[in-house]
Amino acid sequence: MTALERLREVLGGLVDTEPAALEAARSDRSGHAAQGRPLAVVHAETVEHVQQTLRIATATGTPVVVRGAGTGLAGAANAGSGEIVLSTARMTRVLEVRPEDLLAVVEPGILNADLNTELDRYGLWWAPDPASREISTVGGNIATGAGGLLCAKYGVVRDAVLAVDLVLADGRLLHLGHRSVKGVTGLDLTSLVIGSEGTLGVIVGATLRLRRRVEGEVCTLAALFPGVRDAAAASAAVTAAGAQPAIMELMDAASLEAVHALLGIPAPVPGAAQLTIRTDGPAARAEAERIVGVLRAAGGDVAWSADAEEGERLLAIRRSMHAAMASLGTTLIEDVSVPRSAMPAMFDEIARIEQAYGIRIPTVAHAGDGNLHPNFIIDGDEVPPHIWEAAGELFRAALRLGGTLTGEHGIGTLKSRWLAEELGDDQWELQRQIVRVFDPQGILNPGKVFAPHD
Amino acid sequence: MTALERLREVLGGLVDTEPAALEAARSDRSGHAAQGRPLAVVHAETVEHVQQTLRIATATGTPVVVRGAGTGLAGAANAGSGEIVLSTARMTRVLEVRPEDLLAVVEPGILNADLNTELDRYGLWWAPDPASREISTVGGNIATGAGGLLCAKYGVVRDAVLAVDLVLADGRLLHLGHRSVKGVTGLDLTSLVIGSEGTLGVIVGATLRLRRRVEGEVCTLAALFPGVRDAAAASAAVTAAGAQPAIMELMDAASLEAVHALLGIPAPVPGAAQLTIRTDGPAARAEAERIVGVLRAAGGDVAWSADAEEGERLLAIRRSMHAAMASLGTTLIEDVSVPRSAMPAMFDEIARIEQAYGIRIPTVAHAGDGNLHPNFIIDGDEVPPHIWEAAGELFRAALRLGGTLTGEHGIGTLKSRWLAEELGDDQWELQRQIVRVFDPQGILNPGKVFAPHD
Repeated sequence: MTALERLREVLGGLVDTEPAALEAARSDRSGHAAQGRPLAVVHAETVEHVQQTLRIATATGTPVVVRGAGTGLAGAANAGSGEIVLSTARMTRVLEVRPEDLLAVVEPGILNADLNTELDRYGLWWAPDPASREISTVGGNIATGAGGLLCAKYGVVRDAVLAVDLVLADGRLLHLGHRSVKGVTGLDLTSLVIGSEGTLGVIVGATLRLRRRVEGEVCTLAALFPGVRDAAAASAAVTAAGAQPAIMELMDAASLEAVHALLGIPAPVPGAAQLTIRTDGPAARAEAERIVGVLRAAGGDVAWSADAEEGERLLAIRRSMHAAMASLGTTLIEDVSVPRSAMPAMFDEIARIEQAYGIRIPTVAHAGDGNLHPNFIIDGDEVPPHIWEAAGELFRAALRLGGTLTGEHGIGTLKSRWLAEELGDDQWELQRQIVRVFDPQGILNPGKVFAPHD
Repeated sequence: MTALERLREVLGGLVDTEPAALEAARSDRSGHAAQGRPLAVVHAETVEHVQQTLRIATATGTPVVVRGAGTGLAGAANAGSGEIVLSTARMTRVLEVRPEDLLAVVEPGILNADLNTELDRYGLWWAPDPASREISTVGGNIATGAGGLLCAKYGVVRDAVLAVDLVLADGRLLHLGHRSVKGVTGLDLTSLVIGSEGTLGVIVGATLRLRRRVEGEVCTLAALFPGVRDAAAASAAVTAAGAQPAIMELMDAASLEAVHALLGIPAPVPGAAQLTIRTDGPAARAEAERIVGVLRAAGGDVAWSADAEEGERLLAIRRSMHAAMASLGTTLIEDVSVPRSAMPAMFDEIARIEQAYGIRIPTVAHAGDGNLHPNFIIDGDEVPPHIWEAAGELFRAALRLGGTLTGEHGIGTLKSRWLAEELGDDQWELQRQIVRVFDPQGILNPGKVFAPHD
């Protein structure tokens, strides 16, 4: 029997071979699509379904691509010819919420926003807030080690997961981690799984570390600067002054222009860049006032408000960024991260690369944590070679500045060719061997992350 | 040539075979000592010394035990017959402090307290604060994944390390992690090394994530309760009320009696237990007032102060715990951790075990994060079998409550026999295989952590 026949025999109607489903599983939000169509999409509804699928995949040597909502930006969940798509999107239950322990146990397919709606009833929230939170799953957030806007103050996924249930390639179920806040028993495999992009196993459950809803005022500031370097220096000055904004977002001139055009508001002063900052918690207003001082001293034209509606208006420009980029063409969103003080230097590098390649690279940054999203705008679906060259220069610049080639999107297929440059050959090989301990046959997401490189 | 001869040839005077040095390397602060004496102590002063030592160890198949200040509580750094002790205690330099990026780069041998003295000049601190901070090294803190009193609010080592330089068993140097706050490039080997207790490689450098000194008032509270269960329930109520103390320590009746006796102050009411709580930051006083309310509602007799001297007086009883235990005999300090709401149940289990074995188990707890330190008092150096049996029951009780057998001290030699019970055989074997990827010959800390078990 073929793998597909076995899947049908064991999993029946959960095995989907509708052309539309297969086609959808080829691509994610990166714009990249895998070659060919996968064999089938298995819509797992239970842990046992996941185990059955993996046992069949192991027995038949069939590759498996795990998929949540398909909102990734690096192609890690894209499935092609001969591959089984194992979808956990139907595993959406919240199994437990324990306010007294600030934890929740969930299935992987629940959307980040749906989880937070549920938690809000308890006055709790799960801090990781990728921009995709309305449409991305908690399992996908864990598999990619997702970040978001609030990370500098409230942490990334890595800070917010206590335990993970993982099904190995051969179908065995492991319980990694524990429900206690502290624990140093053996190696920290929970952390190893976070950000492993489907290469180590299938996340079928997670114990999440929650926070209590932040009470008190929220203050929002928007500041315009003559150029992006000034804005970057000002954001570094905010951090250096000891302030801890909940959100600190930077938009360069090209981003700002594109958003203004999309929203139909008057064009900004040419070259102007913007910082948008939010403070919260018991010291929100005092911090906002302190930050206003820092921004003005750095040459910023500052507006700020403690009013919720006015605050949303000030944030609206930043929130329209993705739509503005989409209006310009197909977007390759990059994701380098550098030490915060290196942001002005990173913007210099971007300007240099723009000049060298004769392109514009509209860039936004989570300035509070040094994570930049330079956007390459292209025509059609294929990233042309000179754009990849420019992106390669960008990655190397980030590495020279002590940073990394991906802050929160992952390696997937799109960045695997640069992985060894960052890790070094010895570490690359060591990591690949660790993957082989989990998946000796190499059937989990083959060709992703640790793809052969020059 | 023997391993010792080769070491002498290459490392000369750094190779120490003085009987006192060899004897000292046999034991740590757990009271446990390894069988026999090690071959030599190598006092590495540079990364190259570490690499040279490991190349010789690999070439000769000689086991290596890495050691910092020897303050461990699980025997992981104890070296015996035929082993090389690789000490990083002389590698004490602070290589970089970057206030603007809230990071420091240090060598592993610097003492936690010395680092913090240096950082204080910049208005910064490294949050991990094990009770041993005056005498333990940063490298040892990382190798054990150390915790401390401030963890519930300010995190453990795992939250405070961005990158680690690791020398593998064969002498190769790897740079794990990066200087940026965010990063999801490949597998998170930095987290894997944290708490790996010398089994994966030798930590020769670390990039630490720093915090700004907390400004504002500090309030300290001490509350007496009729019994330990009341105190545990009150601490859970503080957490459940949404307060976030910097410190929340619980002492049971036996601990409290021992400290009162040591300090020569009148004996406490029989059976009484104490909570000591500290709040800090901008909302310190408001939080303290709220906590006073919670504690009184829970039946506590509360004293509190925002005065520094009076605060230290209130904390003095808790700070005398270790000395009080030492005055009673040899102490086996246990380290289970459970979800916070399970603390009353864990104290019930301790009471049950005390009764079943006819012993007292004075217990303190970092109540803010559910980490308990039950103390077994013994005569002499050897832990008698019935005490190990009682400890085993304690571990199993913690596991049943969703906890773990070590919150912050590690597995070392003393808990390796229970490791597979917590991990399960599949995960235990998988972890051992990961260790073998780093150390194929098995020369790093052999017999520790992943020791053979029943």
